Amino acid sequence: MPVIDPVDLAARLISVPSVTPASGAVFDVLDEALSGLGFTIHRFTLGEAPDGPTENMVAIRERGPGPHVGFAGHLDVVPAGDGWEGDAFTARIADGRLVGRGANDMKSAIAAAVAAVSAIEQPSGTLSFLITGDEEGYATFGTPRIIDWLNDRAIRPDMILIGEPTSETRLGDTVKIGRRGSLNFWIRTRGVQGHVAYPHKADNPVPRLAKIVAALSALHLDDGTEAFPPSNLEFVALGTPTAASNLIPGEASAQGNIRFNNLHTGDRLIALLTETAQAVDPGCEVRTRISGEAFLTPPGKLYELVTEAIRAECGIAPELSTGGGTSDGRFLIKLCPVVDFGLPNASMHKVGESAGVDDIETLSRIYRRVFAGGLEA
Amino acid sequence: MPVIDPVDLAARLISVPSVTPASGAVFDVLDEALSGLGFTIHRFTLGEAPDGPTENMVAIRERGPGPHVGFAGHLDVVPAGDGWEGDAFTARIADGRLVGRGANDMKSAIAAAVAAVSAIEQPSGTLSFLITGDEEGYATFGTPRIIDWLNDRAIRPDMILIGEPTSETRLGDTVKIGRRGSLNFWIRTRGVQGHVAYPHKADNPVPRLAKIVAALSALHLDDGTEAFPPSNLEFVALGTPTAASNLIPGEASAQGNIRFNNLHTGDRLIALLTETAQAVDPGCEVRTRISGEAFLTPPGKLYELVTEAIRAECGIAPELSTGGGTSDGRFLIKLCPVVDFGLPNASMHKVGESAGVDDIETLSRIYRRVFAGGLEA
Ligand SMILES: [Zn+2]
Ligand SMILES: [Zn+2]
Repeated sequence: MPVIDPVDLAARLISVPSVTPASGAVFDVLDEALSGLGFTIHRFTLGEAPDGPTENMVAIRERGPGPHVGFAGHLDVVPAGDGWEGDAFTARIADGRLVGRGANDMKSAIAAAVAAVSAIEQPSGTLSFLITGDEEGYATFGTPRIIDWLNDRAIRPDMILIGEPTSETRLGDTVKIGRRGSLNFWIRTRGVQGHVAYPHKADNPVPRLAKIVAALSALHLDDGTEAFPPSNLEFVALGTPTAASNLIPGEASAQGNIRFNNLHTGDRLIALLTETAQAVDPGCEVRTRISGEAFLTPPGKLYELVTEAIRAECGIAPELSTGGGTSDGRFLIKLCPVVDFGLPNASMHKVGESAGVDDIETLSRIYRRVFAGGLEA
Repeated sequence: MPVIDPVDLAARLISVPSVTPASGAVFDVLDEALSGLGFTIHRFTLGEAPDGPTENMVAIRERGPGPHVGFAGHLDVVPAGDGWEGDAFTARIADGRLVGRGANDMKSAIAAAVAAVSAIEQPSGTLSFLITGDEEGYATFGTPRIIDWLNDRAIRPDMILIGEPTSETRLGDTVKIGRRGSLNFWIRTRGVQGHVAYPHKADNPVPRLAKIVAALSALHLDDGTEAFPPSNLEFVALGTPTAASNLIPGEASAQGNIRFNNLHTGDRLIALLTETAQAVDPGCEVRTRISGEAFLTPPGKLYELVTEAIRAECGIAPELSTGGGTSDGRFLIKLCPVVDFGLPNASMHKVGESAGVDDIETLSRIYRRVFAGGLEA
């Protein structure tokens, strides 16, 4: 079986443009590498523009009884943006760093995981790669569909490592063991449009909206937990459909987001939001969308494997964090314990995105330890 | 001296397009009519696009000692808009109504006043027409410049009748004897933009803005007076420069308007606004613009002349109102008592704008009585 070089594979993945949602050629590169390592490849493409086409790949190598260790990631990337030195989709090495869109988030981590697998024994148990082409977008046809695919076949990993770039100032300093939930909401108050000179013929929806915004901003959701910071509500936008100096608008709206810890569920927060807003204005309209529930992987074998591997390769003890943005962990937690660990994320989504060559190699060795340890029953 | 037909002159004025700001040809039509009646014509054009060019005309007929009675109006019109049956700038008579842009606001009233003057004796005293080409816009080069022109020459009318369409359901039902003041304001709170997942790195300006909006909306300005309704504050717009679901905006803004009676001045209201807003957020920014102070023409000869003329021609007693939008009365009140009286305003600024032929003729007779009465010392 070939031993794969993680930097070389990462460079080949970067050099196939795959702006979200992704399908096709970039998956072919990974398909070839994993096929060569004896994985059975399952690929399926779903959806149409703008949410698709999205390709998903489940690659499985089963060698008899024993634990099933999964690795999850995404091959789609955010758009290149302007200001690159050279082509964003032509990987190059400069000052000891691999540069290109996706070098950090997260083609190098996928390559590191493939290289890790190429370098370990697998006497028994199952290894799998769960790779989507839509993590950066709405994920409509992404990881949730991979979960459906696994459930349809009664395939359930015992643990999943996600390769998102979680490290902050140096490789190994931060592991994500959970995430806050995220709830978007929109509130609209309605009135009767009219001329400011004739207020008795109009009904201004703005003061009611202001009272709702003030009341929701004053909510104290909780004080945080050992694993999570306090839940937090932020307004992100206010608006009126008109802005003429003499016109009372017919409606007014506010948009916000709640990042919440596992003391809450999305549904209970929606009830609280609605009740608070309608106490001010019973006629107001409240729309919501839960992007993900809060989750926390309970302490256990996966924590220990990742922490121990980082200690062995980097000589530090990682912080076990629940901060930052969401990841596909919010979906995968429905299957089994999930931990996110990957490269330092300073250049993620930026122009000149890059990853240290040394870091990619070290990351691959960390993943190798986690996979090897995970396969031991 | 020719006796002028008001409907014919109105039709000729309508048939010269004069979307605000206006100058040139439409003034030539009026110039010819008033010259023929022995008026001395003074015309001056000021400004450049978009506030100009604006033409103003002061036409004066002085016949020895006695009162100076002025008539004020505007020859500019609002844009035609879509949906006219035929050309908006070709006057036509249909179902007893003169139809065309400006028929109601306010070329017919100017024609009625010219016709009135053509039909009266003026043994002594002074009659004048103060006609601007920018009442519908910002009036930058409009009536305030006519006032300057008069002041420069120490010409001061004793009373001014403005021909705006003040009647509501029927001619003569409403006379405007004053107007509320109008103050526009803009409030901005500033914060620090950031990601909703990292609220400690950001500072959300929206809750502070909401509290300011709520506090200002709760102000009780007054209970009104015999002549005026209560002063009233309305918010007309809310906004944030961004509206992404994960982005705390860097600033938030609200826009509003106060219509105020003569218990207030613009400056005192600005102080109250600023104090109330800054009590919530000392760093907030408050910008203001006074469009006009409140004014009230004290009861006196002009009231009586207009009321008596309406009673004689229409058989009703007009309501003496201070409601509705502003007019150039806010400027002219600095010279002398001012009353606004004109046609029923239902079609003002609308597609298919029109005026009843009978109403134009009756209005001309009312104006004739007011001018004749005003000239009697
Ligand atoms: Zn990512
Ligand atoms: Zn007008």
